[in-house]
Amino acid sequence: MAPFKDSEGSPTGAAPGTSVTPPRTVTVGTALKWVVPVLAGLVVYLLPQPDGIKSGGWAVLAIFTATVLGLILQPLPLGAVALVGLTVTMITGTLEPDVALGGFSEPTIWLIVAAFFISLGFTKTGLGRRIALLFVRALGRSSLGLAYGITLTDLVLAPATPSNTARSGGVIQPVIRSLSENAGSHPGDESRRTLGAYLTVTAMQINTVTSAMFLTSMAANPLVQKLAADHDIHLTWTSWALAAIVPGLVALLVLPALLYRVFPPTVRATPEAPGQARAQLAELGRMSRQEWTMAAVFVLLLLLWSVGGQVWDLSATVSAFTGVALLLVTGVLTWGDLVAEKSAWTTLVWFSVLVMMAGQLQELGVIGWFSDTMTKATDGVGWQTAFVILTLVYLFSHYLFASNTAHVAAMYAAFLSAAIATGAPPVMAALVLGFISSLYGGLTHYASGPAPVLFGGGYVTLGEWWRTGLIAAGANIVIWMGVGALWLKVLGHW
Amino acid sequence: MAPFKDSEGSPTGAAPGTSVTPPRTVTVGTALKWVVPVLAGLVVYLLPQPDGIKSGGWAVLAIFTATVLGLILQPLPLGAVALVGLTVTMITGTLEPDVALGGFSEPTIWLIVAAFFISLGFTKTGLGRRIALLFVRALGRSSLGLAYGITLTDLVLAPATPSNTARSGGVIQPVIRSLSENAGSHPGDESRRTLGAYLTVTAMQINTVTSAMFLTSMAANPLVQKLAADHDIHLTWTSWALAAIVPGLVALLVLPALLYRVFPPTVRATPEAPGQARAQLAELGRMSRQEWTMAAVFVLLLLLWSVGGQVWDLSATVSAFTGVALLLVTGVLTWGDLVAEKSAWTTLVWFSVLVMMAGQLQELGVIGWFSDTMTKATDGVGWQTAFVILTLVYLFSHYLFASNTAHVAAMYAAFLSAAIATGAPPVMAALVLGFISSLYGGLTHYASGPAPVLFGGGYVTLGEWWRTGLIAAGANIVIWMGVGALWLKVLGHW
Repeated sequence: MAPFKDSEGSPTGAAPGTSVTPPRTVTVGTALKWVVPVLAGLVVYLLPQPDGIKSGGWAVLAIFTATVLGLILQPLPLGAVALVGLTVTMITGTLEPDVALGGFSEPTIWLIVAAFFISLGFTKTGLGRRIALLFVRALGRSSLGLAYGITLTDLVLAPATPSNTARSGGVIQPVIRSLSENAGSHPGDESRRTLGAYLTVTAMQINTVTSAMFLTSMAANPLVQKLAADHDIHLTWTSWALAAIVPGLVALLVLPALLYRVFPPTVRATPEAPGQARAQLAELGRMSRQEWTMAAVFVLLLLLWSVGGQVWDLSATVSAFTGVALLLVTGVLTWGDLVAEKSAWTTLVWFSVLVMMAGQLQELGVIGWFSDTMTKATDGVGWQTAFVILTLVYLFSHYLFASNTAHVAAMYAAFLSAAIATGAPPVMAALVLGFISSLYGGLTHYASGPAPVLFGGGYVTLGEWWRTGLIAAGANIVIWMGVGALWLKVLGHW
Repeated sequence: MAPFKDSEGSPTGAAPGTSVTPPRTVTVGTALKWVVPVLAGLVVYLLPQPDGIKSGGWAVLAIFTATVLGLILQPLPLGAVALVGLTVTMITGTLEPDVALGGFSEPTIWLIVAAFFISLGFTKTGLGRRIALLFVRALGRSSLGLAYGITLTDLVLAPATPSNTARSGGVIQPVIRSLSENAGSHPGDESRRTLGAYLTVTAMQINTVTSAMFLTSMAANPLVQKLAADHDIHLTWTSWALAAIVPGLVALLVLPALLYRVFPPTVRATPEAPGQARAQLAELGRMSRQEWTMAAVFVLLLLLWSVGGQVWDLSATVSAFTGVALLLVTGVLTWGDLVAEKSAWTTLVWFSVLVMMAGQLQELGVIGWFSDTMTKATDGVGWQTAFVILTLVYLFSHYLFASNTAHVAAMYAAFLSAAIATGAPPVMAALVLGFISSLYGGLTHYASGPAPVLFGGGYVTLGEWWRTGLIAAGANIVIWMGVGALWLKVLGHW
């Protein structure tokens, strides 16, 4: 089984109830974690190389295979695996150092790093918690109202919080816990189902939707953008948000209500919650100067991201850097905060390495060869059928992955390329596969960063988690392939 | 006066004896730290632009001026200043994001980052301390012997420790303190002069020499290499070490003895020191597996750096990455160690920004314009005279700098360019200015990273520090421009 970790790569430890494995098994398991990636890389390397691949391309595929398997099995943490993979590309002479290190200057990468820093501002200033309390005060009279309050909080924070784990773990999870405890719903005993379990699964599934909605709301989305750009498909912050807004809002409306039916809380009225939120808000007092600054920078960022691209030709990365610079100059964040944000630096390293490898696979003809092969395989099937099959395979293969980003890095480019080769309209294919890249994040308790954090709260059993995950995935398929497809048609993407 | 900070950029706090500044002054001072860089940048921007500079070049010079002044005055820490400077290059449209972020994929930068990680291995495993104790056991019967023991320790660690601050602060300074305390020499009272003061100033001046001796022994040396490469001068790890070995060893022999004369310890025999080292070594026990691994990786690295470049065409960066990968795979270092090494990430950011800006100044014709101007100014003077003047100006201008790297970034390229323009042999000029870039690091108590760390030990007064710094600088000028110049002649560099 895949290990528990968040999508930024920091292990969150074993989930409650995991039994201690005897040392012997650990040793064999540890050895396998090393042997499998290395062996797989060697096997790929020794396979007969198809025609049309440039020099070094097949070796990059072998190293890429080993690295991605390493990211999944994690004999070492993500950053270390990526660094070893990077070293192998250079020491074997497969790529020159300046090419191999090229990922580190991709604007895509720095958009993520900058956005990690911006989201720090929400937690550090307490603005994130305040926003959550405001929604609870307004909507919290019932369990369903609370769920929508959590949904709105997540949605408001999403555009500036690419760490969906930070959003879930840093803002939403503490609020769920405090709401549930106050309502007498505790993890580990029967009271868990009164409120906590429902709010937890809703928060999880909602988070996958908000992650899908903005270029900057999930760490792997800019990677999707970059991989699509390698196929000459140029997704902007605005075009992404516009394409996702309709199915996204429908999903955010439907999912809390659907989960309320299939996995209901036993307490439905929570009359005290608004009062408690009001008390906590009173305790917080007025917004501090730091919170105001953070709010102002956030509004500016939303403006720059949405209209800045059109009006001033500002890239999302430049806008994000402007936000970080303002937060530093105003003292909301310090350099010490930034340099201590380990997930940003870890992400910088493994993301850069994956982006570089994926780019080289494209550059050196490997992706082209794969899509040619796929085209031949689906010859005679209409593109619609082929695309639905590809999408479903892409979605459900996530049972094998413990991170959205690892999955995107491993399979997105190949599936996009295959979809286009079967005749699917490129922009539509890039967007739909991009949305799926977030939506599969709630399938299992290890599926994405937020999953182990929320599951670790202890309100939901493994069986309940997988069952609600599957139900929500089904609902998302209907919504995003139904309403979503119609909306993309309206936008002229197919 | 320049603030106290180390060359990796982490402030080390006020030195002992610094009086507390009243709040009012701090406010004005803080404002000035902002106003001066911004104003200077604006003034440069508004100056009449000379001919022959490409579009954007003059704007880069203005932003560069403001950034370097920011790095010196530090209204914010180094990393933050660099990040703001980087943002300005992008938001003003001076440079495209992929150009502005280009510094982050420079192999030079990653050599430094990797070497930071490698040097972690010395401190983490305790191998660094063990080496120091071995030298003390062998040579420590007298104060002079202890000084040479410290010298040898620093020399042995230097090739793999680009953080001269880590070498001084992490290994040497704790040994000095323990040796001195054991000999009854305490900071702050009269006993300080018995042993501690002498060892401290020697450690400082020795460190500037070892920093000058290897491409990988001081953080700014690869920057020197990069800036020289921009002038088509290609310094390798081996050519650097070969050029520095003779004057370096002479300086390492002379300086402890010279300082012993001009700043003598009052206790000259330290008969107990070898015994104490022996006892501490006994306490350490046999070398651990981790220490053996670290030692083996270190020897491999020295091999790769010295002969790897010639035989297998391995760049210093690839070799360094190989070392880091081996330390990760063998478990000597963990990803957690790496990601928590804040100085590495801080250096990554500000170094990348400076390297990018310096490269753009070259690319866009600003450096060429400066050297043309200098050539006209020194017209009619022989290149030897011109070069000596340039070198001395470069060295003593370091009274204005609080970091070797800031000084290199601000002035090295321009001075090298001017030297070449006056007719100095390029390789010789690049090397000599490169050596000076370390040798000025002991001039003041804020001159470089190790200075505030060692000064902060409290054994040496301000007056003593500046006086011994000037004496050592004089000795270094004689050694490096005498023996050093002869040796470079033997090597055929002029």
